[in-house]
Amino acid sequence: MTGPIDPPPRLLMGPGPVNADPRVLRAMSAQLVGQYDPWMTATMTETMGLYREVFRTDNEQTFVVDGTSRAAIEAALVSLVEPGDRVLVPVFGRFGHLLVEIAQRCGAEVHTIEVPWGEVFAPEVVEDAVRATRPKVLAVVQGDTSTTMCQPLADLGEICRRHDVLLYCDATASLGGNAFEHDAWGLDLSTAGLQKCLGGPSGSAPITIGPRAVEVIDRRLHVETGIRDDDDETGPGGRIRSNYLDLAQVMAYWGPRRLNHHTEATTMLYGARECARLLVEEGLDAAVARHERHGRAMLAGVRGLGLAVFGDVAHKMHNVVAVEIPDGVDGDRARAGLLDDFGIEIGTSFGPLHGRVWRIGTMGHNARKDAVLVTLAALEQVLRASGASVTAGGGVGAAQEVYAS
Amino acid sequence: MTGPIDPPPRLLMGPGPVNADPRVLRAMSAQLVGQYDPWMTATMTETMGLYREVFRTDNEQTFVVDGTSRAAIEAALVSLVEPGDRVLVPVFGRFGHLLVEIAQRCGAEVHTIEVPWGEVFAPEVVEDAVRATRPKVLAVVQGDTSTTMCQPLADLGEICRRHDVLLYCDATASLGGNAFEHDAWGLDLSTAGLQKCLGGPSGSAPITIGPRAVEVIDRRLHVETGIRDDDDETGPGGRIRSNYLDLAQVMAYWGPRRLNHHTEATTMLYGARECARLLVEEGLDAAVARHERHGRAMLAGVRGLGLAVFGDVAHKMHNVVAVEIPDGVDGDRARAGLLDDFGIEIGTSFGPLHGRVWRIGTMGHNARKDAVLVTLAALEQVLRASGASVTAGGGVGAAQEVYAS
Repeated sequence: MTGPIDPPPRLLMGPGPVNADPRVLRAMSAQLVGQYDPWMTATMTETMGLYREVFRTDNEQTFVVDGTSRAAIEAALVSLVEPGDRVLVPVFGRFGHLLVEIAQRCGAEVHTIEVPWGEVFAPEVVEDAVRATRPKVLAVVQGDTSTTMCQPLADLGEICRRHDVLLYCDATASLGGNAFEHDAWGLDLSTAGLQKCLGGPSGSAPITIGPRAVEVIDRRLHVETGIRDDDDETGPGGRIRSNYLDLAQVMAYWGPRRLNHHTEATTMLYGARECARLLVEEGLDAAVARHERHGRAMLAGVRGLGLAVFGDVAHKMHNVVAVEIPDGVDGDRARAGLLDDFGIEIGTSFGPLHGRVWRIGTMGHNARKDAVLVTLAALEQVLRASGASVTAGGGVGAAQEVYAS
Repeated sequence: MTGPIDPPPRLLMGPGPVNADPRVLRAMSAQLVGQYDPWMTATMTETMGLYREVFRTDNEQTFVVDGTSRAAIEAALVSLVEPGDRVLVPVFGRFGHLLVEIAQRCGAEVHTIEVPWGEVFAPEVVEDAVRATRPKVLAVVQGDTSTTMCQPLADLGEICRRHDVLLYCDATASLGGNAFEHDAWGLDLSTAGLQKCLGGPSGSAPITIGPRAVEVIDRRLHVETGIRDDDDETGPGGRIRSNYLDLAQVMAYWGPRRLNHHTEATTMLYGARECARLLVEEGLDAAVARHERHGRAMLAGVRGLGLAVFGDVAHKMHNVVAVEIPDGVDGDRARAGLLDDFGIEIGTSFGPLHGRVWRIGTMGHNARKDAVLVTLAALEQVLRASGASVTAGGGVGAAQEVYAS
């Protein structure tokens, strides 16, 4: 007979998902209440307020989508984009390609610009492309874990306003660990996930939608058959191709109308609420500073071990670093050794970097000193056993210097 | 400062969601492991095996979709249906209309047949419609909570084989509490949710896909940009319009290829696994018998209170009953009294039944004697306070007779 779940203890120091904050898991063990219980709707409203602080926005339409981070990406794109609409995607890693893929499936005419992996875009390059393609939506990733790069966004908001383009940002990997200013930067729609810097499990995806995007989406409202009233008008925009990810209906579900849509994933909502609550309690600036500090310690540490770092470090996200696998070391075997003997997971990589770099994360609950030092200490042992030349104590020593400064 | 979550105690006796089994919530408090950790992939494989037993199928492709039950419905339809394909939906309640809505958004040419609320379809009526419309897919709800009806399915499988039609079933509200035989009944694709008879929270949706449906879906495989290899062929079928709910890719993610797709909602997976494990431990037949017994006690109880029951009781699901609100009683006020004073939730209703019936559920963890008797005792008090004529002790007494027999 199969027994209850009993996962092995793991310290997850890859590019995410990482260990959930135990307080988030405790919140998720609370018992359910009914979907329209006054306490439940009040909790939904409270969660909206907490995520406004996380996204740094006044957007009324701030809530969570019941799926993983890519569900929210698709919700954003399928709700904004009608077939034939032009979408521009600056691609600087795997997740830019994902935006392309999703936008294509929504029926968009997708245009891309690319920089080599390990770089980000200068704003004038993006503006030139906006001028050339005149898109309805500019869709951009903030932090792409595949390359560790963090695209500066502040100028893009201004460019989009100037050219009357909607700016969508996928902040899944960056939110909570890197500066993010939805309103100040002029973003129109942003989405995230819990499993990176927010310190929760995957499965609920925070989203915020500004007034310009709300207007576009609300024009497409079509209340579903089965619960539509005779006086429900259909908006003049084309019906959204998805029902589950239809943000026009989902906004009406979270708003005062409480439109019946999906059955709220209550346990995930409890988790999402606790992730935001903990971040707000810590303070967003303090959380970003914590990720910066532990990311800097990890960066110094891997360099102290004699490892080279991939990409333009000036534009690296705080919460992940890509480390070149030393010549002669079997990257997958070393990772397996770290997992099997030390219970520590670090990440492999995609596409052009596959087999070339490891990705090491310091995020969410694991953006802390003991996690950084234990990882560096174990990595030193594994590298030595793999035959790499490694500075004894160099990783932990360099990280400790960062912590002492 | 907002504090940690602290929901009020509620006994959820509506049509679902209901209280989660505490064992499921405990399983969900386990810490995360990495997405491709050998323990994690083994746990995914184990979960597939458990759901084969729940769905009574040998289908290799049996897993969970990371979203609520309607995410799995949409995954099924968007993956099976190409724009212009014909879909036939027998509508006998709100959730039939939902299948229509979702199929339309997938671009299907949708045909419907309808019976009055409170009835189900005779197989020959469905076969006539299949003959007349020659659909690619017959999409049918097994148990529609809006009317409490349970559509017999065994004959539909045979009809679909005869006419070379794919049979999709939404078993969200019925699975685990009513007989369900995916293979024996000739179904091609079935989906469910955790929040009804499976005793878990909403947010993960079990699915099983038979060989005929797998073939149709696999012809549409298009590995997403960003992780596609040069030797990844695109199938001859049209690209699936959703990426998140693309079952061709999701099958490759759950299968030996372990195609990178979404980030697994690990906590929901733990919950889904525990729901199935508990059902398998109890035995599916025993679980259905338990739902039958407590459903019969509740039915006898509401009748014993002098209340009339809506619909064709011979075709009622075991796990929910629709009760006519007595003349002169304000249905919403009585429900509010039950919630506020007794902590017990029963359900309101949709469409033609709104304001006419309450829906009372006995499902999952709440398909048990104390939950039935407490609900009947409290309902008696609330009815009396609302001015209805009610038989003192009649509800609990009638239920006790069922339990004694």
